[in-house]
Amino acid sequence: MNPTLIIFLDFFGIAVFAISGALTAGHKKLDIFGVLVVALITCLGGGTLRDLILNAHPVVWIANTYYLAVGILAALATFILVRLQWMPLRMLEICDAIGLAFFTLAGMQKALGLGHSPEIALLMGLMTGVAGGIIRDVICNEIPLIFHKEIYATAAIAGGSLYLLLIHFHIDDTLASISGMALILVLRLTGIFLGLSLPAFLFSEDERKQ
Amino acid sequence: MNPTLIIFLDFFGIAVFAISGALTAGHKKLDIFGVLVVALITCLGGGTLRDLILNAHPVVWIANTYYLAVGILAALATFILVRLQWMPLRMLEICDAIGLAFFTLAGMQKALGLGHSPEIALLMGLMTGVAGGIIRDVICNEIPLIFHKEIYATAAIAGGSLYLLLIHFHIDDTLASISGMALILVLRLTGIFLGLSLPAFLFSEDERKQ
Amino acid sequence: MNPTLIIFLDFFGIAVFAISGALTAGHKKLDIFGVLVVALITCLGGGTLRDLILNAHPVVWIANTYYLAVGILAALATFILVRLQWMPLRMLEICDAIGLAFFTLAGMQKALGLGHSPEIALLMGLMTGVAGGIIRDVICNEIPLIFHKEIYATAAIAGGSLYLLLIHFHIDDTLASISGMALILVLRLTGIFLGLSLPAFLFSEDERKQ
Repeated sequence: MNPTLIIFLDFFGIAVFAISGALTAGHKKLDIFGVLVVALITCLGGGTLRDLILNAHPVVWIANTYYLAVGILAALATFILVRLQWMPLRMLEICDAIGLAFFTLAGMQKALGLGHSPEIALLMGLMTGVAGGIIRDVICNEIPLIFHKEIYATAAIAGGSLYLLLIHFHIDDTLASISGMALILVLRLTGIFLGLSLPAFLFSEDERKQ
Repeated sequence: MNPTLIIFLDFFGIAVFAISGALTAGHKKLDIFGVLVVALITCLGGGTLRDLILNAHPVVWIANTYYLAVGILAALATFILVRLQWMPLRMLEICDAIGLAFFTLAGMQKALGLGHSPEIALLMGLMTGVAGGIIRDVICNEIPLIFHKEIYATAAIAGGSLYLLLIHFHIDDTLASISGMALILVLRLTGIFLGLSLPAFLFSEDERKQ
Repeated sequence: MNPTLIIFLDFFGIAVFAISGALTAGHKKLDIFGVLVVALITCLGGGTLRDLILNAHPVVWIANTYYLAVGILAALATFILVRLQWMPLRMLEICDAIGLAFFTLAGMQKALGLGHSPEIALLMGLMTGVAGGIIRDVICNEIPLIFHKEIYATAAIAGGSLYLLLIHFHIDDTLASISGMALILVLRLTGIFLGLSLPAFLFSEDERKQ
């Protein structure tokens, strides 16, 4: 995939994960700088972890500070919108789903570009996609979304595998990426909309256990 | 210690920590991919952190993808066994104890092999041994085992110190490693079996405080 | 700023964060080694993360094991003092505030010394200052201080910006550092003393939500 598209995917993923971080922080009634900190950790955490593990220095947002600017602007915009009216949980889940799709593919592209094997690329994509959200939820003292939403890691693995399969058969890289992201998004959104009746059941069980 | 033994220790440690991760995730009723993610974080987290801090790239499971395969297979086997019958907490604690013993020594071997001092090696062993379990418990929203089991870090430090003492007096490296691991395991298992009456007291206190 | 002052700042920051880690662990009634582990994670976590992200190997406490010694001694001293009499939460917050001020400036110095831009330096200072405390609170299963204390990240950003502004106008580096730290400390302590009536309100809200 061409470098411009990789940067665009990264920017888009950063914006939606910054929004999801800002929304989670907003639900905790943090002030504006608390919201910024959580938003930046959410949108840069996965990519930072990937770059550290792949020894790809400088890490993405030090090499290109526009990443920081995109994350901060998205978080500030969200903060203002949240002040104007209450943001539903659904919005948070949809942003998280889009971020998962973009970051998974962006992470895979980066690992493959550094010469790693398909298995490592798939794992790096998964890590890039889920780590930011897990850190966001853990530091906000919430059970990570990934743990009570069935089709989450599954969606990322399926979409990432589809991408690997398509490029294995020499399908155009951009088309393969879009197919992979589309599959992740479709599976995850299916999970969000079909999973509506499950959370209450899981939550009440968890509470009983503790 | 010879490289083959180091790899065997790592593999064994990875398998038991993957089991402990899968069991913790199983208690939270995650689906199979959620179980895999938690198991991989648990069994690879400590070693990854060690390699990042020691700048020992590529990190262990990127250099040798058999590590991933061992972790995934152990997690899948556990998932199937858990489906067949309920796994007791005791099993989780024993796996965690074996993982602690193996990973502590494996981490020390690696740090010493890279030319670090005994103090740094001891700390790296401790980190390799406890970090995966701490991350597992934190992301599963549980109070880390290490915080309500008295003889935990203590066991790792005692066993690691014994190993350092023995190699200081030129005892054979393999024998010294086995002695260190045995001490960790004995101390930790003693803690598990003597500590049976303590948890309830500690738990009720924690709940009252929150 | 001269290297000796940087090392002094680091040592002082490590001591107060080790104390804050030991106090948090003490409130959880951990044994002495559990207290040491949490204290070391608190006082070395932020700097370690900074060094990993900046690829500044060896990380600070591997290059200079006196950092470890300072952290361990501070934690042991705290453990003994806590045994003698109950330590108030206020003490924890003041140590945390001093640590925030020292670590923010120390982190910025390091990033600037490695040739990074002011924005990256500010972010690295913030990370060095808050990451240890966030990790401490997350692993102790507490809501991070930074999330229910309004003037926290704000204080670090304000003090860091003042420092950048002063060195931009060629003010002496030591004076600029002291000014930056003083501003962080004043803002944070103001937050602690004015914020006395807020926590109960926030806490009861959080509990109701969960």
